Formats: sequence, C-alpha cells, structure tokens
Amino acid sequence: MTEFTELSYALDTFYFLICGVLVMWMAAGFSMLEAGLVRSKNTAEILTKNIALFAIACTMYLLVGYYIMYSSDGGGFLPNLGFLIGAENSLDAVTAGGEDAPYYSMRSDFFFQVVFVATAMSIVSGAVAERMKLWAFLAFAVVMTAFIYPVSGYWTWGGGWLAEVGYSDYAGSGIVHLAGAAAALAGVLVLGPRKGKYGKDGAIYAIPGANLPLATLGTFILWMGWFGFNGGSELKMSDVGSANNVAQVFVNTNAAAAGGVIAALILAKLWFRKADLTMALNGAIAGLVSITADPLSPTALGACLIGAVGGVLVVASIVTLDKLKLDDPVGAISAHGVVGIWGVLAVPLSNGDASFGAQIIGILGIFIWVFVASLIVWFIIKAIMGIRVSEEEEYEGVDIAECGLEAYPEFSSSKK
Amino acid sequence: MTEFTELSYALDTFYFLICGVLVMWMAAGFSMLEAGLVRSKNTAEILTKNIALFAIACTMYLLVGYYIMYSSDGGGFLPNLGFLIGAENSLDAVTAGGEDAPYYSMRSDFFFQVVFVATAMSIVSGAVAERMKLWAFLAFAVVMTAFIYPVSGYWTWGGGWLAEVGYSDYAGSGIVHLAGAAAALAGVLVLGPRKGKYGKDGAIYAIPGANLPLATLGTFILWMGWFGFNGGSELKMSDVGSANNVAQVFVNTNAAAAGGVIAALILAKLWFRKADLTMALNGAIAGLVSITADPLSPTALGACLIGAVGGVLVVASIVTLDKLKLDDPVGAISAHGVVGIWGVLAVPLSNGDASFGAQIIGILGIFIWVFVASLIVWFIIKAIMGIRVSEEEEYEGVDIAECGLEAYPEFSSSKK
Amino acid sequence: MTEFTELSYALDTFYFLICGVLVMWMAAGFSMLEAGLVRSKNTAEILTKNIALFAIACTMYLLVGYYIMYSSDGGGFLPNLGFLIGAENSLDAVTAGGEDAPYYSMRSDFFFQVVFVATAMSIVSGAVAERMKLWAFLAFAVVMTAFIYPVSGYWTWGGGWLAEVGYSDYAGSGIVHLAGAAAALAGVLVLGPRKGKYGKDGAIYAIPGANLPLATLGTFILWMGWFGFNGGSELKMSDVGSANNVAQVFVNTNAAAAGGVIAALILAKLWFRKADLTMALNGAIAGLVSITADPLSPTALGACLIGAVGGVLVVASIVTLDKLKLDDPVGAISAHGVVGIWGVLAVPLSNGDASFGAQIIGILGIFIWVFVASLIVWFIIKAIMGIRVSEEEEYEGVDIAECGLEAYPEFSSSKK
Repeated sequence: MTEFTELSYALDTFYFLICGVLVMWMAAGFSMLEAGLVRSKNTAEILTKNIALFAIACTMYLLVGYYIMYSSDGGGFLPNLGFLIGAENSLDAVTAGGEDAPYYSMRSDFFFQVVFVATAMSIVSGAVAERMKLWAFLAFAVVMTAFIYPVSGYWTWGGGWLAEVGYSDYAGSGIVHLAGAAAALAGVLVLGPRKGKYGKDGAIYAIPGANLPLATLGTFILWMGWFGFNGGSELKMSDVGSANNVAQVFVNTNAAAAGGVIAALILAKLWFRKADLTMALNGAIAGLVSITADPLSPTALGACLIGAVGGVLVVASIVTLDKLKLDDPVGAISAHGVVGIWGVLAVPLSNGDASFGAQIIGILGIFIWVFVASLIVWFIIKAIMGIRVSEEEEYEGVDIAECGLEAYPEFSSSKK
Repeated sequence: MTEFTELSYALDTFYFLICGVLVMWMAAGFSMLEAGLVRSKNTAEILTKNIALFAIACTMYLLVGYYIMYSSDGGGFLPNLGFLIGAENSLDAVTAGGEDAPYYSMRSDFFFQVVFVATAMSIVSGAVAERMKLWAFLAFAVVMTAFIYPVSGYWTWGGGWLAEVGYSDYAGSGIVHLAGAAAALAGVLVLGPRKGKYGKDGAIYAIPGANLPLATLGTFILWMGWFGFNGGSELKMSDVGSANNVAQVFVNTNAAAAGGVIAALILAKLWFRKADLTMALNGAIAGLVSITADPLSPTALGACLIGAVGGVLVVASIVTLDKLKLDDPVGAISAHGVVGIWGVLAVPLSNGDASFGAQIIGILGIFIWVFVASLIVWFIIKAIMGIRVSEEEEYEGVDIAECGLEAYPEFSSSKK
Repeated sequence: MTEFTELSYALDTFYFLICGVLVMWMAAGFSMLEAGLVRSKNTAEILTKNIALFAIACTMYLLVGYYIMYSSDGGGFLPNLGFLIGAENSLDAVTAGGEDAPYYSMRSDFFFQVVFVATAMSIVSGAVAERMKLWAFLAFAVVMTAFIYPVSGYWTWGGGWLAEVGYSDYAGSGIVHLAGAAAALAGVLVLGPRKGKYGKDGAIYAIPGANLPLATLGTFILWMGWFGFNGGSELKMSDVGSANNVAQVFVNTNAAAAGGVIAALILAKLWFRKADLTMALNGAIAGLVSITADPLSPTALGACLIGAVGGVLVVASIVTLDKLKLDDPVGAISAHGVVGIWGVLAVPLSNGDASFGAQIIGILGIFIWVFVASLIVWFIIKAIMGIRVSEEEEYEGVDIAECGLEAYPEFSSSKK
C-alpha cells in the first residue's frame, strides 16, 4: 500500500535525521570537554581545532569518504575510489516494494554517517592538545576523514572483509572509537608529551584543566548525543520489532553511562581518596563507549555492568598511560581506545551471534590499519611542515601563537 | 490493520524516546544552573553531585523504583516491592488490538520515567549546596530515587490512592517538583545555613554565584528540556486529538516560561531597582513549574498568566525564605516547592475535571510523605556519617576537600 | 482513509514541534555567543537582554504578531490588525480530506513561527551590546516582535505582495536574518560606537570577548538549531518527496556551515596570519545564513560553496564595517545582514523558479521597511527614555548599572 509505504519512509527518515542531529551535537560535547580539560592558554586553539575538524570531516566525507565507505565491492579489502554521494531515492523505487526497496532517504543516511566521521576525528584532537601545530592537525584531519576512517568503515559497515568474517560492532566501539584512539595514539607517539608533564626522576605532574564546568557540560552533551549515536544505528524505527529495539538501545545506553559514572567515582574515591570529577566524567564516556558495540542484546542491568567495567578500565588506563609517559591531556586514548576494545570484546557475552575470534580479528584489523596509516601520515606531515610548536610557543600557549587571541583575556591571572 | 498499528506504535515510541532525551538533557541544565550559582570553590563538587545523582537515579530506578511505582496495586497506599523493569511488549500483544493493547514500547516508557526521577533528585542538590558532604548526599540520592519518590509517584501515576481521590497533575508540578523541594527543605533544615550567610544582628549577606553565563545556559537547557517533560506527558501522539494536545502543551509550556521571565524581571526592577538576572532565570523556571500540573487545559494567554504568577511568587518566596534563614543557594525550594504548589492549585482554574479539594489533598499527601521520609533519612545519614563538612573545609571550599581538585584552578584570584 | 490521515497529521505535527524546539534552542545559542564576545563587565546584562527578549517575543507574537503575519489579506501591503492565535483544527476538518484540509496542528505551526521571531530579535541584541540601556532595548523588542517583523513576514510567508512578486526565501535569509540585521543597523547608527573602540586618528582598537569557549558553544548551538530552522521550513515530512526534501535540507545546511568555517578560517590565516577563532565562528554562522534562503535546490557541494562565499563575505564585511566605524561587537550585521543578502541573491543560481529581479525587490522591501521603521522606533525611544547608558556606567560596565550584579564576581582581575 503506497500511502503506508510513504509514511513509513518518512518516519524512518525523520528518525535518522533527528539521530543525526544528536550525533552532530556531540561535536559540541567534544569541544567543551576538551576546552575544559586543557589550560586556559591553549583553549582557543583547541576550540578552533574542533570546529575546523568538524567542517573538514563533513566536507571530505562528502567529497570522497562516503563513496569509499559505501560504494565499494562486497567482502573486499581495498575500497573503490570515487566522489560525492550519489542520487536520492526516486518515488518509484520506494513504492516498488520488495526487500530491496529503499525505506529511508539516502540523504538522511549520508547525514547520519557524516557526523560519525566527525566523532572519530574529535577523539584525536584531545589527545594531542596543548602542543601540536594547528595546521598540521587539520592536514591530518583531511586524510583521516577522507580516507583512513572510510576504509576501515567500509570493511564492516560497507560490507567489506570484516563483515564477512563476522565482526560485530553495532554502533562503532571499534569502527569509530577505537579508530579515533588509534589515530590519536600514533599522534601522541610522534609528538611526545607536553613540557613539564614528566620529570626526569620519573615524577608525573598533574596539569589541571582550566574549566571543569565546561568539561562537565561536554560530558552531558556527549551523553545526550549518544542516544542518537547508538539509537540511530538500529537503522529502522517503523515497525514494532525495530521500535522495541531502539527503545532497548536508549535504555541500555543510559544504563551503561550510569554504571560507568558510579564505578569510576567509587574507584577514584577508594584509590585516590577523593571523588575526582574528571574520573566521573571519563567514567560516563567509558560507559557509553563500552556499550556502543552492542547496546541491543544485553538487559538493562547487563548494560549497567558492562558500563561499570568500562568505568573501572578507564581509571586504570589513565593511570597506566601516565606511567608509560604517554601524555593524553583528556584521557581520550583510554576512554575510546582501551574501553573501545572492551566494548568490542563484551559483545559475545550477551549476543550469541558474535564470537570472540571475530571480535579480536576486528580489533586487530581496525587498530593496525588506523594506527599504521596514521603513523605514516603524521610522519609525512612532520617532515613537510612540522607537527610540534616551538618550546617558547608551548610555554606562552598555543592560543597566541596559532590563533592570535586568548580564550579568557580578562581572567587568567598568570601564565601557568 | 496490522501495518497501521505497527507504524502508530513506532511513532508513539519515537515520540516518547525523543521527549525522554529532552528530559535527560535537563540534568545538564540543573548542573549548569547550580554550578553557576555557587561560588567557584564549591563548583567541582556540585558538578560531581549532579552527574553522580543522575547515574544513581537511573540505576536505582532500574533496580527497584520503576517496579514500585508501576507494578503496585490500584488505589493503594503501600506499594509492592520488587525488582527490575519487566519484559518488553510482544508483537502479538501489540497487534491484538483492543483498548488494552500496548501502543508504545515498554522500554520507551521506562526511559521517559527514569529521567523524571533524576529531575526530582536534581532539585535537591542545589538547595544543600556549598556545605553538605558529598557522600551523605549520594546516600540520600539512593533512598530518594529507589523508594521515596517512587512511592508518591505510585500514588498518582501508578494508580494509587491519590489517583482515586481525583488529584490531577499532568506532568508533575507536585509529583516531581514539590517532591524534590520537600526533600530539599528537609535537608536544609537538618543542615543549617552556610557560614557567613546570616549575621548575628539579622543581617542577610548576598553570596553571589561565580558564573552567571553558566546559570543562564542551565536555564535555557531546562526550558528546552521542559518541552519533553510536559510534551511527553500526553503519553500519545499518533492521532489528531493527541497531536493537537501535544502541540497545545508545547505552546503553553513556552508561554508560561515567557510569562514567568517577564513578571519576575519587572518585579525585581520595581522592588530592587535592578533587573536582576538571577530573578529572571528563576522566573523562567517558576513559569515552567507553574504550568506543569496542567499545560493542556489553559489557553496560551492563560498559560502566560499562570506562569507570570509563578514568576511573582518565586521572587517573593526567595526573599521570604532568606528572612526565615532557610539558606537555599539556588532558590530551588522557592522555584519548585512554593511555585509547585501554585501549579497544582492552578489546575482547577482551567480544568473542569479537577477540584481544589483533591488538589490540596495531593499537595498535603506528597509534601508530608516526602518531607517526613526525607527528614528521617537525613537524620539517619547524619547519625551514621555526618552530613556537614567541617568549618575549615567549608571555608576552603568543598572542591578541594571532597574532590581533590578545583573547578577553575587558573581563574579565582582569591578565596571568597 | 481516516487512520492514515490521522497518523500522517501526527507525524507532521511532531516534526514541526521538534524543529521548533531546535529553533527555540537557538535562543541559547545567541545568548552564549553574545555573552562570550562581550567583556565580562557587560555579560550579565546581555544575558538578561537575551532571556527577556525571548520572553517578550513569545508573548507579543502570541498577542498580536501571529495574527498580523498570517491572518491578513492575500497580496497586500498593509496587514490586518488583530489578536491571538485562533482555534485549533477540528478532527472533522482534518479528516475531511482534499487539498485544503489541514495536515498538521495549528498550534505546532504557531510554535514553530514564534521561535523564528525570537531569532530575528536575538540578532539585534549582539550589535547594540555594551552601551545600550536595557529597558530601551526591551521596549524596542516589544515593537519589533509585535509589529515590525510580522509585517514584512506577512509580505512573503503570509501571502502578501512579496509572495506575489515571486520573492523566494525558503527559511528566511531575508525575512528573518536580514530583517534582524536591518533593525540592528538602525540601532547602531542611533547609538554610536563604544567608548574606546575608535581612536581620533582613525585607529581601530580590538575589544576582545571575555569567554571564547562560551562563544564557541553558542555557535555549535546555532548550528544544531539551524537544522530545525531550515529543516522545519519544508513544512511537511510525511511523504517520500517531502522526506527526501527535508533530508536534502539537513545535508545542505550542514555542508554550507562547513564551507563557511573553512573559508573564513583560511581567509583569516592568509589575511591576518592567524587562525582567528572568532572568524571561524562567524564563518559557521555566515555559511548557515547563506543557505537559508534556499537549502533545498543546490547540491551538497553547491551548498558548501555557497556557504564558503558567505564565510569570505563575513570576514570582509566585519573588517569593512569597522573601517566605517559601525561598531558591532559580535559581527551580527555582517553575519546576518550582508550575508543574508548574499543568501537571497544566491537562490536563482540553483533554483530555476527564482529570479534576481524578484530577489532584489525582496531585499529592498524588507531592508527599507525594517530599517526605516526601526530607526523611527529607536528615535522615539531615545526621545522618551534615552537609549544609551552614561559614560560612567559604560566604563564601569552595564552589569552593575542595569542588573546590580556581576557575571563573574570572582574572576575578573581588573576592569578593562
């Protein structure tokens, strides 16, 4: 019945678009989180990075990334190269019926996908904060969003070899979060730690973020946006089964974030004797990353526990990375990388269709590809334009050096 | 017709989920509002409280609260105790038709309800700010969200005795806002005022909030989220009557907030000779609380006037509570309690099905239950672990004492 | 078929309401953007202006504006005067079928329209920041939202003479953004520049904004809200053609913003040698304003280019206005006025139904009406109550003078 098909098509399209708006909003979340966790002298620059990377991601994915990710051959390793996003569905195609008839707008699919790319890229900016050259970062963003992310995205969501292997990743604990963290780790290794972070005698100095309300706001924004991130990944809303699934995904996403907060806060209290707010925030993000690989199969209580494990892992990982002198100012590698791996591995615990073997292959495939490709790109950028600001610029703050302005010109009483 | 039923089910589920996301977002609103209205030395702690209480509310309501509120006997006073959230609707049950057939996902209902609990609890955190022990507060949050709120929630929305009496409270001016304020009042009484708030000679000292842009942002977030709070409480969207009702609720919610702002700002200008921004913000919240008990029956102009009365009341109440030495740093008891009562009493003005008698019974029932139960719990917590930080910790700020960090380490030029 | 009609009505109503919530959220975006771009001593006052103007706009449009805009005669120049928003659709009218049957709730239409008025008014507040009297501004807001905006709104969207001429403005590059900027320009001319902005020897002094994270947040909020602003302006969602159109609008809106950011940032880097964050933010807004007159007809790549031209224009315009000593602290006249004109003129480039002639008539009609009417109102207000604060108040900051409080009482180390 045509009328019904059209209305169903409209509802699924609307669902996609609204979920996409929520994911787009995560760009603001990452911006606020990162701006709150760096020092005031580096705040304007990280804001510039964040809005620019979002713009670059949207443009590069439009130009080439979407084509690479979704127009390549089934089961393959190498993607097809090509441009732009193709034609919209015709009315005839929609109402033809049958299993292959499109049931939502192609443009709404693009919109939903494009904001995912930006999420992956946002993860990188926090880890390399306070010492990377702005334009080196933006150059990396071009390659990451045009090519590196779309290739491994194609492997699973575009029907490539990882999909054939049986790798299961509902909304992208691996494809988005681990990928972003792998690129970030490569950047951190090439870049080295911030001056003053690690003493010669093995001492680790805390460098507190300048604006924790901003970081908290960012976390709440991410929490909100994640309902679109996970909820939209069911890809369909317009029948009872799909609607029930989407509702389960919303409940589980929320439960996992709650579990992550509680676990991280209690662990911080026991370990550091203080209810460290930044750990609670990272706990929320960790809970969300944990459940992203399968927010549908677990019960709500199961989701809460999966998130709680993520909350414990992120605290332990942040401490461990610091001991390894991997300087990640916002904890992005821990929250998205280490916890992303946990999320992927947790899938077979509640989803009988997934196997640990396939999940491990997925983790290795994504990590190796993104890490190695990123490392190469970071080295090329380093050779061409350099990737680190001068020591003096780092001391003065990259805001003045890169952006020619200060984030809080009236507030900062002293350079720290 | 099955296809139609499924699509209708999907639309109502989607409507519930989106409204739930908007209510979840109110958690960020309360966080920003409260973080902006306290001093910088207590900001990180109130942020920690807010994200932790949201996580606790979601978890406790999942474990026991939802069962208490919605699985207890009709017409009763004592709830049944039980765990977890039950099964999702089956496809057969949905398509069976008839009046009792479920028309939206049970999980979406849980998601919508769970964020309401968090709202009630958020009201408490602001009133007890700047002097309560963090873990005492979190212990109270466990009991409030697992038991105290669900019991009185059951009385009306779960079909208990208040529903039988004819108490009418569309989206919870009483059930949510007055309940939160009653718990907050009990806490404030047990806790006492902040040091330096009231002089020995009856003088009242203003303690200005550290970050008014944050407080304004929080108010806008609450305003936005309230469209989900009230708009979702129609519980149905998928026919002409319901759709018209939801639209009326959106219009009235907005009109009432607008009326609250205008009335509070003009009153502040006339009374204090200044257009006090914090009164305008509280006016917006008061307008919203005023209309929450019945955002459907009034005309838009009526809603604007109901909100305006709320805006006048909140300013008068804040001044009055200060004279009574009830120290509520953010005005939560006034905006949610005093104005919540007004909202409940305003229902019979435009809704012929409501009576002042039943509304007064509802107010008394909810207030007495939540206030007395909270008082007992606060006293138990005080006996076991203490509820107030030491004088030295209060002077230094609870951020360092409880969280081991500062919200704005680079900005605060001096301890205030 | 009645069931289908009802469900379709519900979906379109829901779509309208959600888009309206996103546009309402833009009020927070303007507030944060403007609060971040002024000095700390004037921050509380601009926040007060923003929340009060939103409340006033909602109330005045309810009282008279909506009637003027949508109940006047077809093709006319002078509107009918009248009050309030009329009756909701009856079930019979909806299910009667036929082309004239209403397909969404009248109340949802009002809700969507009312937040547009507030947007137009928000544009004004930034341009006149830091020196205008609060109550003079609010008095202007009353007239603008009750009368000036509704009249030119009626000319196009209400079916007046501009609609007959063939002026094409999908979501309001001219009707909303240029109108707001024209009122702002009139205000700036009557008001004059801030003290210390322009030296006697032609020197122009930068007056940096106090809180760039806030300004960035505001920009992201506007970006998010614009999906409702443009996306809702299709006015229908519930068939394949409309759904495809809405999806195209979302994609193009995003692409144009991205293009604006990239173009403005690169131009700033080339011109000023620095990646000026405030230019990137204005680039995003300029991209969004550029595409608002027709976010449907261009391809995504075309939208990106249209936005990029907007990004270039806004940077050039900000520099030019400063040379003309038109002091606009947030760049609102450039971003909404100059770029709004570009947006209107860009329509015929991709939309065969539009003509440059009609577009120019529209620009002139809207600009002249709003500018002249605003100038008269500003002069009347100046004569009655004055519009500019005293020199001493301006030096001390309008927060203390107008609001009796400070936005950041603990942070600002010195008056600047």
